[in-house]
Amino acid sequence: MPTLSFFFDFGSTYSYPAALRIREAAARAGVVARFRPIMLGAIFKAQGWVTSPFNLYPVKGRYMWRDLERITAAMGVPFVRPDPFPQNGLLAARVAVGARDEPWQPRFCVEVFKAEFARGEEIIDPAVISAALTAAGADAAHWIARAAGEDVKDALRAETDEAGRHGVFGAPSFVTPDGELFWGNDRLEAALAWMAHRSPRRSR
Amino acid sequence: MPTLSFFFDFGSTYSYPAALRIREAAARAGVVARFRPIMLGAIFKAQGWVTSPFNLYPVKGRYMWRDLERITAAMGVPFVRPDPFPQNGLLAARVAVGARDEPWQPRFCVEVFKAEFARGEEIIDPAVISAALTAAGADAAHWIARAAGEDVKDALRAETDEAGRHGVFGAPSFVTPDGELFWGNDRLEAALAWMAHRSPRRSR
Repeated sequence: MPTLSFFFDFGSTYSYPAALRIREAAARAGVVARFRPIMLGAIFKAQGWVTSPFNLYPVKGRYMWRDLERITAAMGVPFVRPDPFPQNGLLAARVAVGARDEPWQPRFCVEVFKAEFARGEEIIDPAVISAALTAAGADAAHWIARAAGEDVKDALRAETDEAGRHGVFGAPSFVTPDGELFWGNDRLEAALAWMAHRSPRRSR
Repeated sequence: MPTLSFFFDFGSTYSYPAALRIREAAARAGVVARFRPIMLGAIFKAQGWVTSPFNLYPVKGRYMWRDLERITAAMGVPFVRPDPFPQNGLLAARVAVGARDEPWQPRFCVEVFKAEFARGEEIIDPAVISAALTAAGADAAHWIARAAGEDVKDALRAETDEAGRHGVFGAPSFVTPDGELFWGNDRLEAALAWMAHRSPRRSR
């Protein structure tokens, strides 16, 4: 099945509804979504931002919080504002990159987002990540230890670099097999429609 | 009929597809769209930006140009990249504010956007604005003279201030009668859906 890259940061607010929606939306389109966490802070730094633009530009931040309230209410899912914001997603990202070939990896990512944005838990806490791994059916101790490997740290940096090469500047971002970039939770459907109309598999 | 405020800047790229779409989309929803040009530069300045963020952040700018190509292609309308970008929309905005009670005012706005983004004309040129007025069925000389009135200049500043009070930080932005703000061409439908579900008129 064709694959849509879903680049996100575990601290990113709009990545929460995207993570909740993408597996079902992709399945309906006959597409597999690859969950690819990145460290958005590194990309922000390259643009001169030392924290989330939602903190740097409070007017934009106020809009985002209200918008997230509306989006999650329309989806019928809980939403709490993380404190502090943004949360440090490094541990979660390393676990998810270390486990990227595991069938439960997307489920783990969703569980982390729920801990953070539905229950307000701090996702740098190993106990929170451990619970998310357990909920996803994985061996928590094994995968948290695995996350500390130098190869995993390098792989996360490589993922972030690859996102940058695709032109990613925010999250969530979706990249199609032919390299088209779509930015934002509300552009997921556009990315899937692009694949339906432009993918070489269209003619099957 | 309930009214949706459509705040835009004539130089704003995503305001072009929004202007082309909004009258029909609003009509289908039983809503009237008020075309309310503002001077986004004044709002950007308050955030510390001296030009469009698409110029300040080239990675974001590259995405925007590609995204506009895709959006306009999907709509089947032409798109050319204005040079220079952003265009100076002051004259067009003053004409549109001066004529805000005229039935042809939305049509004039659309004609300006077409000159700018479909044909690549410079919209600070009075000849371009004059042609847009004529195309909208208005007396071009009269309305261009009207645009120079101090009351019109004040009214445009007041519109920009009011947008700021609603939390507008970019364009296009849509504000519902109950004060909900939706930012971006791709959130027009969300704004109309909000009005359908939340407006006090829903119970009629």
